[in-house]
Amino acid sequence: MSGSLRLDPAAAGAALVERCDALAALTEEPGRLTRTYLTPRHAEANTLVGQWMAAAGMAVRVDALGNVVGRYEGAAPDAPAVVIGSHLDTVRDAGRYDGMLGVVSGIAVVEALHAAGRRLPFAVEVVGFGDEEGVRFGATLIGSRALAGTFDPALLAARDRDGTTLREALTAFGGDPAGWHSCTYGAARIRAYLELHIEQGPLLERLGLPVGVVTAIAGATRRAVTFGGMAGHAGTVPMDGRRDALAGAAEAVLAVEAVGRAHGVVATVGRMEALPGAVNVIPGAARFTVDLRAADDAARAAALADLDGRLAAVADRRGLTLAQEPLHENAATPCDPALMAVLDRAVARAGLPVHRLMSGAGHDAMAMAAVAPVAMLFVRCAGGISHNPAESITAADAGIGAAVLLDTLLLLAEDTPA
Amino acid sequence: MSGSLRLDPAAAGAALVERCDALAALTEEPGRLTRTYLTPRHAEANTLVGQWMAAAGMAVRVDALGNVVGRYEGAAPDAPAVVIGSHLDTVRDAGRYDGMLGVVSGIAVVEALHAAGRRLPFAVEVVGFGDEEGVRFGATLIGSRALAGTFDPALLAARDRDGTTLREALTAFGGDPAGWHSCTYGAARIRAYLELHIEQGPLLERLGLPVGVVTAIAGATRRAVTFGGMAGHAGTVPMDGRRDALAGAAEAVLAVEAVGRAHGVVATVGRMEALPGAVNVIPGAARFTVDLRAADDAARAAALADLDGRLAAVADRRGLTLAQEPLHENAATPCDPALMAVLDRAVARAGLPVHRLMSGAGHDAMAMAAVAPVAMLFVRCAGGISHNPAESITAADAGIGAAVLLDTLLLLAEDTPA
Repeated sequence: MSGSLRLDPAAAGAALVERCDALAALTEEPGRLTRTYLTPRHAEANTLVGQWMAAAGMAVRVDALGNVVGRYEGAAPDAPAVVIGSHLDTVRDAGRYDGMLGVVSGIAVVEALHAAGRRLPFAVEVVGFGDEEGVRFGATLIGSRALAGTFDPALLAARDRDGTTLREALTAFGGDPAGWHSCTYGAARIRAYLELHIEQGPLLERLGLPVGVVTAIAGATRRAVTFGGMAGHAGTVPMDGRRDALAGAAEAVLAVEAVGRAHGVVATVGRMEALPGAVNVIPGAARFTVDLRAADDAARAAALADLDGRLAAVADRRGLTLAQEPLHENAATPCDPALMAVLDRAVARAGLPVHRLMSGAGHDAMAMAAVAPVAMLFVRCAGGISHNPAESITAADAGIGAAVLLDTLLLLAEDTPA
Repeated sequence: MSGSLRLDPAAAGAALVERCDALAALTEEPGRLTRTYLTPRHAEANTLVGQWMAAAGMAVRVDALGNVVGRYEGAAPDAPAVVIGSHLDTVRDAGRYDGMLGVVSGIAVVEALHAAGRRLPFAVEVVGFGDEEGVRFGATLIGSRALAGTFDPALLAARDRDGTTLREALTAFGGDPAGWHSCTYGAARIRAYLELHIEQGPLLERLGLPVGVVTAIAGATRRAVTFGGMAGHAGTVPMDGRRDALAGAAEAVLAVEAVGRAHGVVATVGRMEALPGAVNVIPGAARFTVDLRAADDAARAAALADLDGRLAAVADRRGLTLAQEPLHENAATPCDPALMAVLDRAVARAGLPVHRLMSGAGHDAMAMAAVAPVAMLFVRCAGGISHNPAESITAADAGIGAAVLLDTLLLLAEDTPA
């Protein structure tokens, strides 16, 4: 019976937070946490994580692209692995849990198996991805794309702000740029990919829940929108003789908000500029961005169509020109229904209400979905704040997250034909 | 009978446009018209204008602050003057009529009197003000404020972008900074101030009228407004959990527009910024400007009170903070009713429909109102465009303007007790 092995959330949580603190000490910038891909601090993080992995009974290696990988063998050698991963790199002036909590939670789970002398029908691998945030080379998910086989080797020529190429940085790190394919897992080698991550949003806190099961990583569309009107003197052009581009853009901002609400998606205008931008000149142009995300690609398409209609109506009514430029587009990554069901069961067995939610932010699981069924467990964070030193979780919540993750493995083991 | 002396609009108009072209050749920047206060090109403009004035029978002087003044004596010596003025400085990359048309029109009127050997019961003075636009020293209306006695001598220490003070520039120009009071006209010396200017707005063009009588120079209020909300991740914060400062600002832009319409004033948001200004971040703050102008100060106050209420309601409903900072405030300058009535008669005698309109832009008449009753005649310009090389008028309209201005003087002479 899998129920016989349990993590004590309180003890496990304290240890997890301690390890996140130890990783947070490895920073490129004094007084704030910044750890980017293939830097000396990244190497130190891999070493520290490798030591924890080894202590948990795992075979440790750093792959050709700098990901640190620990493998805890299953009952039979060379069994396919359940991979538990997240990333060890950070944004600039980062919090200490985004990414790292998932890595140390994976290790804690294996630690518990190892301490109990327990082998599962599958291997368990824990991966600390070297790059997810994309800070150094401007491309995100380098580590997980390598494992999934979707890494673009053209990126090896990308340069950081000092002019160093990814190829050069990898070589200096002890990696093997030419051998990146050696990182890649075939589908036969990986049974499932699980990722525990802080929510980076406020929903679990609002609901009073320590963990939630992710349904999908949102698909996203980003656009730059420009309304063109007629600039004019703010004192001499009467109200009924204006074609004010900013007034049109203002209606558009409210249309974006209304579309988000009407379609159950999230839609945001993050940038706004009026041109020429003088106090006493009626704006002749207004430029802004739209960021629209949805767990479901059809919902996103419907919301965009609605928005397009509303923007065209604004332009038409106000005699403005309208131009839209695509900035970014990615499809949603649905989580695997069977894996979600197992996570639900593990949450319920921990005595907690089961709550499912979308991930509006991107994660390594997006890349890993190319090679394996994926699922994610979110852990509550304070105020929805991330990418900020104020990022905060409780040790108790961290412990609950790791306990649910362990129980998920045990439930998967039960489901595995002998 | 005053009707015996008339300007032929066609001939006068061609000459006026030719003189504006000649002034436009005096520029600091090759290929575009820029002529700022107390520069060598300003001195050349004064010289050219002074030659025209002298040829029209006027006594010419350049005053202590660099204004060029021509005086055509009345029937009796030392009679109070009707002053016709406008400015000879320009914005950068300017049009050729804003300011200059008023000066050359005044000269044309005196030229006609002189050619007919006609003396009026009052002197006629024509002034080419050295600074109205404020480009060089950042303070507008320096010339007309000196005549009106409202020049602030603290400005003598103001520096241009090369570090030259106004005091130094005046001395180099041959002016007399310490003697600025010598420029000032007592009320007894000036009977009225008249200014002809291009409209800088689209109304006369829209109405098909060559000229219009100005009712007032608008009072103006400019403010910087900031809404504060809560920044957040565009993907993870649900629509109903947001305090989006830009969405509030968007409502405010539409409120500014609605208030302008509802109160018969002009109201403009010319600048807008969302902070932090990233595509994927919900704006935590939004900053924008409001420019609100009205011919009537009570209407402006009522519009501002209405706007304040609407902004507070937006902030309240959305849970945003609201801060307003004053940027500029000036009261309206009403034109003198008796002078307006004379202008109306002159327009009607020219066989044209009488139309009155507000001036949304500032003019030298604003300063001159401190020392004399003022009135203004607007001449139609193409598309309402000014402060731009595309500024355009027709010679026919310029001629009509000068003819109406001459007839205005003749009507004022009729009204003068013998």
